[in-house]
Amino acid sequence: MSFPVETVRHSLSHVMAEAVVKLYPGAKVAIGPAIDDGFYYDFDLPSPIQPDDLPAVEKEMRRIISANVPFKRVEVSKAEARDLFKDEPYKLELIDGLDDGTITVYEQGAFRDLCRGPHVDSTRDLRPDCFKLRAVAGAYWRGDEKRPMLTRIYAYAFASKAELEAHLKMLEEAEKRDNRKLGKELDLFSTHEEAGAGLVYWHPKGGRFRVELENWWRDEHYKNGYEILFTPHIGKSWLWETSGHLGFYKEGMYSPMEIDEDDYYIKPMNCPFHMMIYKNGVHSYRELPMRWAELGTVYRYERSGTLHGLMRVRGFTQDDAHIICTPEQIEDEIAEVLRFSLHMHKTLGFKDIKAYLATRPAGDGAVGAPEMWDKALESLRKAVDAQGLAYEMDEGGGAFYGPKIDLKVKDAIGREWQLTTIQFDFNEPERFDLTYVDADGQKKRPYMVHRALLGSIERFFGVYLEHTAGAFPIWLAPEQAVVIPVGPDFADYAAEVAAELKKAGLRASAMLSDERMNAKIRDAQKQKVPYMLVVGAKERDEGVVAVRVRDGRQLPAMPASEFVGMVRGLVEARSLEL
Amino acid sequence: MSFPVETVRHSLSHVMAEAVVKLYPGAKVAIGPAIDDGFYYDFDLPSPIQPDDLPAVEKEMRRIISANVPFKRVEVSKAEARDLFKDEPYKLELIDGLDDGTITVYEQGAFRDLCRGPHVDSTRDLRPDCFKLRAVAGAYWRGDEKRPMLTRIYAYAFASKAELEAHLKMLEEAEKRDNRKLGKELDLFSTHEEAGAGLVYWHPKGGRFRVELENWWRDEHYKNGYEILFTPHIGKSWLWETSGHLGFYKEGMYSPMEIDEDDYYIKPMNCPFHMMIYKNGVHSYRELPMRWAELGTVYRYERSGTLHGLMRVRGFTQDDAHIICTPEQIEDEIAEVLRFSLHMHKTLGFKDIKAYLATRPAGDGAVGAPEMWDKALESLRKAVDAQGLAYEMDEGGGAFYGPKIDLKVKDAIGREWQLTTIQFDFNEPERFDLTYVDADGQKKRPYMVHRALLGSIERFFGVYLEHTAGAFPIWLAPEQAVVIPVGPDFADYAAEVAAELKKAGLRASAMLSDERMNAKIRDAQKQKVPYMLVVGAKERDEGVVAVRVRDGRQLPAMPASEFVGMVRGLVEARSLEL
Repeated sequence: MSFPVETVRHSLSHVMAEAVVKLYPGAKVAIGPAIDDGFYYDFDLPSPIQPDDLPAVEKEMRRIISANVPFKRVEVSKAEARDLFKDEPYKLELIDGLDDGTITVYEQGAFRDLCRGPHVDSTRDLRPDCFKLRAVAGAYWRGDEKRPMLTRIYAYAFASKAELEAHLKMLEEAEKRDNRKLGKELDLFSTHEEAGAGLVYWHPKGGRFRVELENWWRDEHYKNGYEILFTPHIGKSWLWETSGHLGFYKEGMYSPMEIDEDDYYIKPMNCPFHMMIYKNGVHSYRELPMRWAELGTVYRYERSGTLHGLMRVRGFTQDDAHIICTPEQIEDEIAEVLRFSLHMHKTLGFKDIKAYLATRPAGDGAVGAPEMWDKALESLRKAVDAQGLAYEMDEGGGAFYGPKIDLKVKDAIGREWQLTTIQFDFNEPERFDLTYVDADGQKKRPYMVHRALLGSIERFFGVYLEHTAGAFPIWLAPEQAVVIPVGPDFADYAAEVAAELKKAGLRASAMLSDERMNAKIRDAQKQKVPYMLVVGAKERDEGVVAVRVRDGRQLPAMPASEFVGMVRGLVEARSLEL
Repeated sequence: MSFPVETVRHSLSHVMAEAVVKLYPGAKVAIGPAIDDGFYYDFDLPSPIQPDDLPAVEKEMRRIISANVPFKRVEVSKAEARDLFKDEPYKLELIDGLDDGTITVYEQGAFRDLCRGPHVDSTRDLRPDCFKLRAVAGAYWRGDEKRPMLTRIYAYAFASKAELEAHLKMLEEAEKRDNRKLGKELDLFSTHEEAGAGLVYWHPKGGRFRVELENWWRDEHYKNGYEILFTPHIGKSWLWETSGHLGFYKEGMYSPMEIDEDDYYIKPMNCPFHMMIYKNGVHSYRELPMRWAELGTVYRYERSGTLHGLMRVRGFTQDDAHIICTPEQIEDEIAEVLRFSLHMHKTLGFKDIKAYLATRPAGDGAVGAPEMWDKALESLRKAVDAQGLAYEMDEGGGAFYGPKIDLKVKDAIGREWQLTTIQFDFNEPERFDLTYVDADGQKKRPYMVHRALLGSIERFFGVYLEHTAGAFPIWLAPEQAVVIPVGPDFADYAAEVAAELKKAGLRASAMLSDERMNAKIRDAQKQKVPYMLVVGAKERDEGVVAVRVRDGRQLPAMPASEFVGMVRGLVEARSLEL
């Protein structure tokens, strides 16, 4: 019989617990859930376990599996459970927290665990080649740093050997593409713990990427009916009290600065500033929709342990926009913002995109009339349908201020990354008392939608770096071509060709150091430079350049002017291919 | 005999004091210096004076002038001075502050003032038509808000009536061009006291200007060998201690934010972040010069009373760059940065540019070996000479960390604005221990130069707004053309033409409200839109557009495509003319 992979993972965690308890007599067991790519189990061990010890645990697990032991479900009372687990203090604590009534226990062989199940029928349903112990880590009991530190053993586990292998290969590939590693190798950015963790410093080559990306972003926004704003990075407490952020978002904000006895906060969001601009004038329905975008750098608190390269930072530049429109316009606006988002993602080369729709959270906390929520959700649903986009519902997963669509893109090695978010906000228009004068002369409340398309420039750079492994499409490549002389005699000619390319607006340079040609080619390939023009006597005499491509191909020799034309064409088309 | 205008101004201030004391018996006099465009005098008055009262003071001044009273210089001892001014408490305080020895007193008629002079020989040397009392303001005695509030009377004064009239006309013109006024009329930007004074919110039209300006700025920097960086807006105290800012610039910085028990400061300058990027790697002399630019938004404390529209703000985006080079390169680098600055200013239409060279301050505070100062100053002087630029020396006016050149541009109504600053910094390379490996394998200390070209984007916007009176050149105009139908029958055709222009990349729209054509033309002119295309039956039938220019000219009717070509040509050439 075939079981869901979660059940397999969970059963394997029991098998691992059995193995650990056997190999480490006196080990106390805590909890062992299935997770996304496998499972873990937390132990209180009599002696430390090292990564080197994991093969022995795996071996014992395989022995247990091959013994074909059945998983037995037993129902007991709370008192019986307490008795069964009298030597397991963590289980006893868990039992104390359970409601009175029947408690389920699962047993395989001599091992017994407090567990809701379900499990596979027998260890025969587990396969010895579909899991792999991964790592040992410390974890506080119940995540509470005042409780004992336990030992967590992580494992990968999948339904088939092929899936496990694919996952391991993906991880290996992911490690090679790690944005922190590539960021250093390609000299794109750095972070500096001593000057503040989670803050990104863009180096010249990272800057080239960012300038090109942002130029394109601005062009596209203008072409698609947006206006671009610039607003301050700090605002007086009045602004954050009015927006409500000091009430519901304070834990994400930094402590205030004092200026002339007033408290100023560095912005965690751009929206209140856009509200102020809207409120600066009286607006007619004829002016709506407003689509106001900003590349606004915000600062938010993240725990230092969660900071991670470009993926999780404390300062980031949201590619933000606020759409302010009439209720009549909202459906078209949502459809348009979704279409625009998909257009942008496709230009960047993301083909596999999935939507997640989050609805009104349970309870009384949500603001905005139910009919606004209904109308908003309806417009979100219609928009994803119109784009033929696959989507999942996240019932009750909206913020208190409105429903939202998140878009996740799949990268080149199959990982999903959330980039876009499109969120209704029924809170701020109310708090800032936004109005427009309708055709009937009445003041009315507009709808307001927040939207970040790439999410943040920093995180997007991380995702894109890992997606492309640093081999950016030519329009985003920090350096588009290098010219390499076959030997020192052709250095002048190489410099001349490079100058011609630069004059034509290409990002190009000549590699004129004393290194050998082959070393330079390797360097350029390592730097993921799209084109290497190797020039020597033959090329000079024939007035052509020999063109090697980053991916190993070699193009026919061509005049430099033809190469310029080719690159320009690829850049204009924002081609993903070379 | 003709006297320097400063002497005339100073003598007039004595005459005004005499007049005020006569008209307001019991008035106590404080100080009355010459200033840039006239003079002022501070009084402690027995009864308040209003702007309406100034003509009477002027009249009395003219009477005194026409009486041809000589100015008499008298030398007295400190004790005699104390006796002479026994009824003038402010003068007595000033006398107490003087060194012992001879003190000079000037007398005209019955009025006597403690004064170093010089003065004109007689009131006959003053002209009754070359001055004008300007305003009454409050001013603390000795600028100390704990001392008495005095009444300051300001006056304009020039060497000739023509100069006074030209100045008054300039002021009238300046008032019309006031960036705060135009900013509102053209809907370019706003500031919001309640959300924080001195912080600029760029509206859509201001944003269009800024995007165009910054695009050009980035292009030019790339073309001229710069790289563009992006760095955080906050940094841990370690960074500011290392750079020295917490020592020598603390009064310009805001109070710290606490993050994980560390103090973080919002940046008043970008330089320490660029230093960190430089230090991120080992650099060979072959990599130098580095020219690293950033549009970096900084926040500095300015007293709220000094904040003024876009001209004096608390948050501003420096168009910053740091040049890091070898001592051998410094002369060429300075020459190049100056050439580049002038090129940029000329593109923007500033023709009259003057340099100010500031040298090593007196005392022991300055850092850097004297020979570095000499070499640096020499490179600055050579650079201004090479550009044939007029310059003034500001002996001892450099910062403690190095000499500098400031460039001031003259605007359309003759005012000088400092935009560019080019400053050596002998402090930070030392503090951050910047090094490069020279050809001889030795680690050496590079030179470092700070440079802001426009100064800040916000302030530049203010200066340019006032320079152009909002009539921006076409490449910077938020809206480049509007299409106006002669009547409602041609609304569709107007919309069609506008769509064609937009598709061709022009910033254009059709004015389709119910207003009359002439009202729309007036509106567009008031909004300083470069071109108004007026379309009716004739134009539609002939497939052309009628082109009216912002300045009142009318161009021959032309096909819309020809208009597009014309505008594109002007934009590409960054033409200042339409």
